Order: sequence, then C-alpha cells, then structure tokens
Amino acid sequence: MQFTYECLPCVFKQIQQLVSKATDDSRTREKLLRAMLASMADMDWDVPPPAFSRDQQLIVNQVVGDADLFLVEKDLSTELAKEVWEEIAEQATREHDPFEAALRLAIGGNIIDYGIDGSFQLSQAKSRLFEVLALPLEPSRITALQDAINKAEKIFYVLDNCGEAVFDRLLIEQFRDKVTLGVRGMPVLNDVTRRELASSGLAGYPVVDTGDCTPGVSSRYADPAFFQAMRQADLVIAKGQGNFETMDDYDRPIFFLFRAKCSVVAKHLGGVELGSLQVIGKNV
Amino acid sequence: MQFTYECLPCVFKQIQQLVSKATDDSRTREKLLRAMLASMADMDWDVPPPAFSRDQQLIVNQVVGDADLFLVEKDLSTELAKEVWEEIAEQATREHDPFEAALRLAIGGNIIDYGIDGSFQLSQAKSRLFEVLALPLEPSRITALQDAINKAEKIFYVLDNCGEAVFDRLLIEQFRDKVTLGVRGMPVLNDVTRRELASSGLAGYPVVDTGDCTPGVSSRYADPAFFQAMRQADLVIAKGQGNFETMDDYDRPIFFLFRAKCSVVAKHLGGVELGSLQVIGKNV
Repeated sequence: MQFTYECLPCVFKQIQQLVSKATDDSRTREKLLRAMLASMADMDWDVPPPAFSRDQQLIVNQVVGDADLFLVEKDLSTELAKEVWEEIAEQATREHDPFEAALRLAIGGNIIDYGIDGSFQLSQAKSRLFEVLALPLEPSRITALQDAINKAEKIFYVLDNCGEAVFDRLLIEQFRDKVTLGVRGMPVLNDVTRRELASSGLAGYPVVDTGDCTPGVSSRYADPAFFQAMRQADLVIAKGQGNFETMDDYDRPIFFLFRAKCSVVAKHLGGVELGSLQVIGKNV
Repeated sequence: MQFTYECLPCVFKQIQQLVSKATDDSRTREKLLRAMLASMADMDWDVPPPAFSRDQQLIVNQVVGDADLFLVEKDLSTELAKEVWEEIAEQATREHDPFEAALRLAIGGNIIDYGIDGSFQLSQAKSRLFEVLALPLEPSRITALQDAINKAEKIFYVLDNCGEAVFDRLLIEQFRDKVTLGVRGMPVLNDVTRRELASSGLAGYPVVDTGDCTPGVSSRYADPAFFQAMRQADLVIAKGQGNFETMDDYDRPIFFLFRAKCSVVAKHLGGVELGSLQVIGKNV
C-alpha cells in the first residue's frame, strides 16, 4: 500500500512527536527537524507509509544516538495489558467461543498504538479494549482463519505493538507448536522487538527479527533471513496496520489482523468503518 | 517575535492547507510539497512565524502561478461580516461607549482567520464575533489608545484579514481624516490586499501596500515606501497576530490590536488567556 497525500498529517504528527521525545535541546531539535524535512523532500515516495517512520527513526539514531524513544510507553503498555488481561479474557471467553475470543483480543490489542495516534492515552485503552468484544466480525472470516491455522504446519506470526503482544498470546497458544514469531529488528515507535517478548509472555518461541526499524516489514530493508522464515511457513499471520501497509502484496497465504485505524487504510479497503475489526485473508 | 518549535503544528497545517487548495493534481501536489519541505529545511529560522507563510506562498506562486488561494473565503468573510454588521454594531453601541464599541468590534473581527485555524468555519464566526462584546478589556488600555489617537496627527492603520476589515471601519471612521491604510502587497492566506478595500467599506483612504506576501510586515521584504509611510505617521495601529509577530520590536508609537489566538503568542505575552482581547501599546 502506497503513501498518499492523505498520509501527511500522520507523518507530520510523527515528526513532531519524535523530535519532542528525542531531546529538549532546541539546537538539537532544529537539527533533527531540518534533517527530517530535507530527507522527506528528497525521498522516494513510492513507498508504504511506514517507510517514512523508518527514515525518521534513522535520523534520530544518527543525531542523538540509537534511541528507543517509546521505551516508557512500551513498558507501560505491556503492564496495562497484563493488568486488564484476566478481566477481559474472562469476559471474552464467556461471550464467545475460545478461538473467536482469542482472535478478538488479539485484534483488540491493536488499539494500543502511539505511531498513528500521537495523543493515544493508556487511560483510554481499557475501555477501547473491551469495546472490541462487541464489534461486528463476520463469522465466515473467523472460520477461514481457523481453517487455515488448522491446515498449516508452520505459522509465521508477525507481531506489532507492545501491549498488543500480551493479547496475541492467547491466540498464539492455540497453535503454539507450529509458530515462529517475527519482530522488528530495532526500536521504532512502540513496536515489539526481541527485548519485549519475555515481558509480554511470549518467551520460548522461535523468533526472527527484520534487522530493520521499519514499523512493518520493508521489502527493501528487512533481512533476507526474515523473508526466508516467512516463506518456510505455510501461513503468515500479520498483526496491525504497519504490517498490512507493507505486506499487502505478499504472494503467499497470509492473514492480516488489525483495526482500521486511519482513514487512508479504511479507504484502501473500500470504505470500511474507522475502528472496525479486520481479518483479511489473501492467497488462502 | 521569533519562530519556535511550538509553531510547527501550525506551519505543517498551513502547508497541507495550501497544497490542497492549490491543486487536485497529485503530481503537482508532490512537487509543491517537496519544494515546501526542502525550503523549510534550508531556510533561516531566526524569523517571525509569518515568514514561513511567505515562503510557502511564493512556492505556490512559482509552481501553480500567482495564486489567491483564499479568494472564495475572503469574499465570503466580507459578505458575512457585512451581514452581521448592523446587528452586532447596534448591540455593541448599546452596551459600550462608542469608542469601546468600535474597538471591541475591530478586535472581534480578528477571529476571522484561516491562517491560524485551518478548520475555521464561517458558520461559527457570528457567535465568535458576538462573544467579543462580553470579554474582559482593561479600561486603562482603552483610554491609552484613545488618548494616543486623539493626540496623533497622522495614523497608519495596518489591516489584517478580510471580514475583519469590515469591522475595522467603525474604528477607522473615528479618525478618518488622519488615517493611511496599510495592506499586503500580494495575496496570502485571507489577508486584505488593495483588491478587498472597496468591498470592505474602506474605499477612499490613502493606501500603502507592503509589496510583499508576508502575512504581516516583513522587516526584510516589505517595500521601503511602506516603512516610510509608517514612520511619517505619529501613531501606528496594527491589527492581528501576524502584524504583532512581525512588528513587535517596532521602535515608534504603535498599538497592536488582536485576539491571542495561539498558545505561542499567548505564552510570549506572559501567559495571557487564549482568545483574550489584546490592546498593547508600545513606545506610547
């Protein structure tokens, strides 16, 4: 999925957010900003929107040193997710069959996202997580995903955000012997790297990382080993918008699980409702 | 007053607004955007914020030809201001003495501004105009302005936005024989140029324009003739934030009349309330 003019407000918001977080020093802020603007003016725009986040993160790394700007938010998200976990999982399994319950929670966790919504507040997360239990989700899509998971021998599961990953666990545990996890190779936004796996309850699984800081899987910059791991699986499950935006033309069986959080993605999907739950199977 | 990091959201909003208005063609939008980003990355940032608007407007002019992007809004603002004029002027003069009434209306008109608030809606303007009659305004400042006007023999009155100019009329008429008007030399945002004087009820006054498209008075780019006219007056009255931001270090008697519409200006004034009425006399 390609960057469009409508992505600009988001890109600008991220620039401001990253610069603010990176430093309080006005000279360094100016340096960062000038570098980000110059790079944006020059860069290839035939890219998915997460390429802009990669570019900005690399500039932050160059100017202020390798920076995990969302470290605090990442750990708080994980803590919060763990706190509400029991309560929400209990309600989910009471209202839905175990697979649908796990699926709804995994998608629901996707609301924890600082990349798209700079003003995202953890305090709102709890109610946003609960609302996912009542949102429409087509039964045929649930069945299609469940069938694909049952048939698959090897599943590559590409994680997205911290906090969200806590909720992925319930789903992943349903095919735990088949799964390899995919994570970002370097810190970017609040995306999961190897560092946060254990605290998210996802220790012990085989893991491959992209070796890159695109908040998605860049066809250009992700490690060949990452693609090899993906192709060795007979099913890929990719969480979140960033993975969808970067992998929507992947040519092997893949399911994208996410909430349609921005109007560009909602439009790209033919006008789905903002915030709606998406279970999109391709080549399946 | 100098550009600060906190001005960025506004600058980014303006970029998007100008590009959207300038063209629907995606290639031209990309060209405009790249040029604006590159210019912003390179430009001197020791400037007042309106310098960024000038820069962007010049890029629009270069890429799509001299463009009066807010022509429709400018004329609609003028029409709206005329429509509510009788009603609001009647209420103002009933509630306040004639000078204070005129002053409140002149400042109140300053709420009609597309430059700062991209989402400004003319439909809200009427109630925003009426609210100005009830907002706090220190009597000593009113008296100081009135005294300065009475003492002055020549007054240079720098206009700001369309629509707003309709409300300036009542104030200007109180010293009509002393006044020369200052306007922008080229279209920029919804600022008044010579074109809109007659429709605003301000025909017949001597006029000097800046010869420039800064939405303020650029010490660098405004015509020498404009500064000469200002210095020949013994009192300058400057309307709106753009004039304040660009002329706050002017070294002759000057009154700035505006609403503090953004947090950067509010902070610069020592933490005044957002939206408050400002009558700021310098060197008087």
